[in-house]
Amino acid sequence: MSRRLIIGIDAMGGDFAPDNELLGAQLAYEELHHRGCDIMFFGQETTIRSAAQRLGISLSRFSLTHADESVTMHDEPASIVKKKRNSSMYQGIDFVREKRTDAFVSTGNTGAVMATGTVVLGRVKGVARPTIGTFFPTISGTPTLLTDAGANVDCKPRHLMEFAVMGSIYYSEIIGINNPKVGLLNVGEEPTKGNEVVLEAHSLLQQSGLNFIGNVEGRDIMTGDVHIVVCDGFTGNIVLKFAESIISVLRGKISGFADQNLWNKVRVATALPTLKSVLKDMDYQQYGGVPLLGVNGVVIIGHGKSTPFAIKNMLVRAAETAEHDISGKIESFLQHRSEL
Amino acid sequence: MSRRLIIGIDAMGGDFAPDNELLGAQLAYEELHHRGCDIMFFGQETTIRSAAQRLGISLSRFSLTHADESVTMHDEPASIVKKKRNSSMYQGIDFVREKRTDAFVSTGNTGAVMATGTVVLGRVKGVARPTIGTFFPTISGTPTLLTDAGANVDCKPRHLMEFAVMGSIYYSEIIGINNPKVGLLNVGEEPTKGNEVVLEAHSLLQQSGLNFIGNVEGRDIMTGDVHIVVCDGFTGNIVLKFAESIISVLRGKISGFADQNLWNKVRVATALPTLKSVLKDMDYQQYGGVPLLGVNGVVIIGHGKSTPFAIKNMLVRAAETAEHDISGKIESFLQHRSEL
Repeated sequence: MSRRLIIGIDAMGGDFAPDNELLGAQLAYEELHHRGCDIMFFGQETTIRSAAQRLGISLSRFSLTHADESVTMHDEPASIVKKKRNSSMYQGIDFVREKRTDAFVSTGNTGAVMATGTVVLGRVKGVARPTIGTFFPTISGTPTLLTDAGANVDCKPRHLMEFAVMGSIYYSEIIGINNPKVGLLNVGEEPTKGNEVVLEAHSLLQQSGLNFIGNVEGRDIMTGDVHIVVCDGFTGNIVLKFAESIISVLRGKISGFADQNLWNKVRVATALPTLKSVLKDMDYQQYGGVPLLGVNGVVIIGHGKSTPFAIKNMLVRAAETAEHDISGKIESFLQHRSEL
Repeated sequence: MSRRLIIGIDAMGGDFAPDNELLGAQLAYEELHHRGCDIMFFGQETTIRSAAQRLGISLSRFSLTHADESVTMHDEPASIVKKKRNSSMYQGIDFVREKRTDAFVSTGNTGAVMATGTVVLGRVKGVARPTIGTFFPTISGTPTLLTDAGANVDCKPRHLMEFAVMGSIYYSEIIGINNPKVGLLNVGEEPTKGNEVVLEAHSLLQQSGLNFIGNVEGRDIMTGDVHIVVCDGFTGNIVLKFAESIISVLRGKISGFADQNLWNKVRVATALPTLKSVLKDMDYQQYGGVPLLGVNGVVIIGHGKSTPFAIKNMLVRAAETAEHDISGKIESFLQHRSEL
């Protein structure tokens, strides 16, 4: 790549903005600089400058585009393009459209990022429904990409097919596994199982030209035996949020056990460091945000509670994604298919 | 209750039948005997007798009804009522219909138990779709009943409403919490969220007369803040199987960590007993099977890999359920509602 890339970041996005965004950018700086990427903040200039000063972060390494407004969790996702064009989110996405930046990351209102990204950047030719995927850690160590993770709650069979195409291309480009295995999330392995939508999606996927391994079940998501798990966004979102809650359920159980008596407290104190080491690579933060796939441009969406470490990983993920022409590859795959 | 109850058990059901069924019945014997319940095995008499002899279990405490055939995992669920009337499953359910027994438990082909139970026993008046619910352990200790857990993969809004009614009545009778809290599983808390089916189900539930607390998300299933979580069987089954896989994922991660080096092995050996104590009441087995709700009779379905301990709990659960007139209460609730 000849010119340097610019990764935009919504400095007013998440629950701990702009602090965690600044700290995350600081953490990502060396790695991104080395691979030829610069970082541009979008947000209230005075807020960002005073936070940077307080945190001891020099803004001279970064560029900054002032935006008067911020998108909140109370904003209707679809309203941003009409009502909040001066927001850091809209501006950051619009810079991608104008090719003034090469990617945009935000930990703000997920629905708003999706809606704004889709409208402003437009859908990739051949894509009816852009999707967001999310990575699950697995036993084998190879992550599973579950898609759709909540962008589309009502899906037709051909939408599931599109998710499979977008997920496969993203996975092979970013994780580096060619021809990754695609499974259709269902209630049983037999092709005759499932609701009306997945029954039809199953036959579409068999003719898709993807490495479709058939139906997979809830228990297969974290084995590592399948690379892309395709489902509607209703199911995907519920599984994702359930999965995210498990660590806190475990934590609650452990502290409840420790509180029972002093001996239990000692036992927990002894066991905890080991458990933490074991669970380290089950940490969602390492995957740093999820891509909005199927729009003309790179948009990475992060959890509102992202730590600086998670935001650093989002920025790196955004750079990796921008370096690969994911949208172009999705377009040419779908075009090639429709010509068959 | 004046007369003794009889709980039937499919001795040819699960992966370890008839051994685990015999051992489970043996474990349950004292408790059931004490509460006025007897146990009746259904299955191949010679197979059961020789297993009992090998395991040192005296069959004199139990009754036995011979059934020539067994239902396998390869049998089409709907075919049992036509083709396998001599099976232990059909006979066991038919005995409930004839009121020769008061409940039936099976760890066999789940779909076959559901289909046969529904056809042979008939649906409770007012119920369009019988449901199977499943208990999740929670942080607070009060279990959550998720229903439907896989019986109905295509649902209309009124089916979700029925699941809520059946789940509420079962929960209050068996767990002993009056007016339990019902949540609708969805992708967000706001009533405007979700797919078409849940949007309409939300308004039906508001008028249901149940203690409906609104939408809940995947992360709320294991907090204990909601007692009954209502969803379609497609979503429910995927969440259930995902949840069931977590313990084995943890186990895989722990053994992978231990295998890295000797020091890790020592750390894991030290920490494991504590972890096991903590996770003890997260064990699905303690809830002993799930009820088929909405049919005229008590049928409890267990996991094919149920241990003797799990089967013992299924038998106890079946006795508890038979002692309460769940079907009658569902019928009168629905009748009362339709008269409003």
